[in-house]
Amino acid sequence: MARRSDHTREELWWLAIDASRKIVEKEGLRGLRARQIARDIGYTIGTLYNLFEDLDDLIMHMNGETLDQLMEVVSKVELTQNPTMDLERLVHCYLSFTHENPKLWNAIFEHKLPEDRPVPEWFSEKVSRLLAIIESTLAPILSDRSETEIHQHARVLWMSLFGMTVLEGSGRLQDGETAFTLAKTLIKTYVDGLKSGQDMSAGSEL
Amino acid sequence: MARRSDHTREELWWLAIDASRKIVEKEGLRGLRARQIARDIGYTIGTLYNLFEDLDDLIMHMNGETLDQLMEVVSKVELTQNPTMDLERLVHCYLSFTHENPKLWNAIFEHKLPEDRPVPEWFSEKVSRLLAIIESTLAPILSDRSETEIHQHARVLWMSLFGMTVLEGSGRLQDGETAFTLAKTLIKTYVDGLKSGQDMSAGSEL
Repeated sequence: MARRSDHTREELWWLAIDASRKIVEKEGLRGLRARQIARDIGYTIGTLYNLFEDLDDLIMHMNGETLDQLMEVVSKVELTQNPTMDLERLVHCYLSFTHENPKLWNAIFEHKLPEDRPVPEWFSEKVSRLLAIIESTLAPILSDRSETEIHQHARVLWMSLFGMTVLEGSGRLQDGETAFTLAKTLIKTYVDGLKSGQDMSAGSEL
Repeated sequence: MARRSDHTREELWWLAIDASRKIVEKEGLRGLRARQIARDIGYTIGTLYNLFEDLDDLIMHMNGETLDQLMEVVSKVELTQNPTMDLERLVHCYLSFTHENPKLWNAIFEHKLPEDRPVPEWFSEKVSRLLAIIESTLAPILSDRSETEIHQHARVLWMSLFGMTVLEGSGRLQDGETAFTLAKTLIKTYVDGLKSGQDMSAGSEL
């Protein structure tokens, strides 16, 4: 507790986030305690609560950092304007990330804010930026559709993929199945469906 | 503990399963303790372990009963040979069931057998019978495909729907979204995709 003035506020903030990530990486979200974080960074709990409103606020920021890291790897994926290929590349990248960071990734879905407390706007924006990449891959085949519709298709795809990763994570896949092979079938069929729907809506304009 | 000989083995088995379900309905799987089940049915833990190998075995049978109850309601759904309509009806029935029995349904996915212990065949068969209903709805548009392929599409659809229910259950849907509206978009697009794929494979035979 002697290093009280060794760090700036920003440095302290990052020390706390990094310490939290290390705890969650080892023990999952359930192992995260303010007392332990404070001990790990060598400051008091009081210092921690000067930086964050409460433990929920700290967890939201830790999860935001996980989203930022995913965004960083995902935005390096080279896109080709071929929706099936692009979605497969994105999913491959997403699955690699969640396989490498399973407990940090789970923390995003395990953590629930109290019912009366809305998700902060800055957090929703990080999620939206990730989904916007899926939307952009669908754009070439959905040029006629409204933004709302493209947004909904991106969300349906994302939630479907999420289902596969959850079931893979809890050991429910069959022999020979992986989240990636299942995702490939989903993507291929879904994109075929969007294209065929697009053909129909184009047809109705004639 | 005085009723030691009041029940047949089969009656005891059902008493234990029903008591377990009641505990899980209230407290979730984490609240389930052999001691509590024994107390609730008025027998000793010894009696319980005469009926079930261990708590894992009891939980598998309790979960099997949940699958049987879902099968019972799902098999009453009137099917029409129109895949989109049939899948929507099945999903509606499935979502009603999971909304009414959230903790019993979660127990199926929360419970993990030890790694060296395979899922018993009788349990996998119950899951297969449920998936076979999805497969049968796809059959009219997948007459040319192999059983393996139909099976895979049914599993992809099922896992996708599962993703939506998980995210709905943890409060991650946006305003105006429900697992059912998302599922309808998935089903419509996926069935369109299967039909368009079928057209292509029919074409390649000429």
